[in-house]
Amino acid sequence: MRLEDLGEFGLISRLTDALETRPDVALGVGDDAAVLDPGPDMLVVATVDALVAGRHFLIAVSTPEEIGRKALAVNLSDLAAMGAEPCWALISLLLPPSLDVGVLDGVYAGLRHEAREYGVAVVGGNVAATDGPLTLDVVALGRCPRGAQVTRAGGRPGDLLLVTGSLGAGVAGLLVARDPQRAAGVAQNMLQQARSAMVTPTPRVAAGRALASRRLVTAMLDISDGLTADLGHLCERSGVGAELDASRIPIHPAAVEIAPRYGREPLLLALHGGEDYHLLCALAPDRRDEALAALQAVGCAPMVIGRLTAPDAGMTLRYEDGSVQPLAATGWDHLSQGI
Amino acid sequence: MRLEDLGEFGLISRLTDALETRPDVALGVGDDAAVLDPGPDMLVVATVDALVAGRHFLIAVSTPEEIGRKALAVNLSDLAAMGAEPCWALISLLLPPSLDVGVLDGVYAGLRHEAREYGVAVVGGNVAATDGPLTLDVVALGRCPRGAQVTRAGGRPGDLLLVTGSLGAGVAGLLVARDPQRAAGVAQNMLQQARSAMVTPTPRVAAGRALASRRLVTAMLDISDGLTADLGHLCERSGVGAELDASRIPIHPAAVEIAPRYGREPLLLALHGGEDYHLLCALAPDRRDEALAALQAVGCAPMVIGRLTAPDAGMTLRYEDGSVQPLAATGWDHLSQGI
Repeated sequence: MRLEDLGEFGLISRLTDALETRPDVALGVGDDAAVLDPGPDMLVVATVDALVAGRHFLIAVSTPEEIGRKALAVNLSDLAAMGAEPCWALISLLLPPSLDVGVLDGVYAGLRHEAREYGVAVVGGNVAATDGPLTLDVVALGRCPRGAQVTRAGGRPGDLLLVTGSLGAGVAGLLVARDPQRAAGVAQNMLQQARSAMVTPTPRVAAGRALASRRLVTAMLDISDGLTADLGHLCERSGVGAELDASRIPIHPAAVEIAPRYGREPLLLALHGGEDYHLLCALAPDRRDEALAALQAVGCAPMVIGRLTAPDAGMTLRYEDGSVQPLAATGWDHLSQGI
Repeated sequence: MRLEDLGEFGLISRLTDALETRPDVALGVGDDAAVLDPGPDMLVVATVDALVAGRHFLIAVSTPEEIGRKALAVNLSDLAAMGAEPCWALISLLLPPSLDVGVLDGVYAGLRHEAREYGVAVVGGNVAATDGPLTLDVVALGRCPRGAQVTRAGGRPGDLLLVTGSLGAGVAGLLVARDPQRAAGVAQNMLQQARSAMVTPTPRVAAGRALASRRLVTAMLDISDGLTADLGHLCERSGVGAELDASRIPIHPAAVEIAPRYGREPLLLALHGGEDYHLLCALAPDRRDEALAALQAVGCAPMVIGRLTAPDAGMTLRYEDGSVQPLAATGWDHLSQGI
């Protein structure tokens, strides 16, 4: 069945039937707005991010369920980067009227899957027809105790830089999706891991909360544009420079395997490839052991990859032989690049 | 200049430069998410609504400033319908890369105008490229004291129905925009009022808060789909029927003037035309005078237009001669109709 045959209200009731809720939802789907109870002395954390067909996902590559999961996951990743607890989401859909309802059922199955996984209640949204591509615009709302939020701006020279896991798998998955034949011979489990990183990235919610709740980090963000681009954001907001140790950048095994097939250096995929959704954070050197332990306790394989420096030092990459190169903050740019 | 020449980060800084803020914004634009302080014992009210070029606005009809104003206004109207105080907004833009930056500057000027008017801080958003039409997806967040929110579900048989002003101007403006020549000879000020109702609707924020803060109403929603369609939503959620008095429906003078030129009954424009953005509410008969006075004090011209009835009575329209007709809840359907 096509959407235009179902109508707006038929569609809404189909999508929102029996959504799971939370005790702090005073009013969910079905009214002019949702009403939410953050609780006493809690701050509310809010973010919005859109996935556009043909630019942020390909219907030929991702299943509808995977598209739905990713649409929520990338937003939960932003909440994770603030150290917040994800609580509520609103889903704004831009729908080609000729879209098959089955695709949307799959997208919603994915959204519900991801919402359940992270304890998020879908409390509202919107449907609008468009002459353009299918677009999922997701609003994620979370909460954190007053003062526990972690911004990009608190890093200081001398802080260590830490990532919550290995990088490069997302962009490796993208290379394979664009030109699958060059990946012939790569082990299936590596291809599968690269694909998963691209189509169903994991928001590091437990990692962000573990670091924020213990006040272990001075600045944090998620690596969506790429390590160097996002490090550039952190440096700009914190007013610092940064030095990364080339030998300490954790490169995902799938990137190590796949990059050479496409004439790429694995390290460069880890440095500049986007869509990894690990967290990058800065912390005082004396919090290092506690931070590593807190992250290992939630299943991460964290790595200290460098340090913040004086602002006039810019961003540099230090090799094991002691040589130092300037590091360009290049990454993903949503307006000039597509998939 | 075209957007693709400016790039994502150049665009974001151009749009978000020197945004006005509020004391309850702990963190605004420029991080992974915004951090907001609703204050002790306040509930958070959240809504999202998209305007799509060619469907919800026409670039040939509305100026970019008007498009920006409306994109925020329709969301503030949803908060008004809950009786909430609008506080914060996030703006998610879907942008054709070839769009002229001047259009977006105008849209943002309109968004800022409307935000300033209602004391709303723009605290975040997203930009994404699309191969489809320009789309403004706006998230509005507000707050209200615990228990002060007004839903669609509290109406009871015997309650009076009240609207905060006259109806039909928005759809009259739409008729004129579609076929301007048939409006030849209509007074300029009527054409202007119809156009304004369509391109820069007024969210009835003060009216909603006045009613909610005094606990004067049992149910409330905004008239965006059309009076009968939205009354249908109220009846369904409240589990009641409704009877409207045909002679008491306040018809906007512009609808009275314009409707006959297009072969329409003015009353039908007021009953079924969408996009009026007045509030429709239900209230106990003994709160009538207080409600009317509260609305007049904030500049409204409210009207009692009927009453809620037993659920099995359905929706009816009563004429002055005592005859009663069934009333169909027909209105705007975003998936099967466009502009």
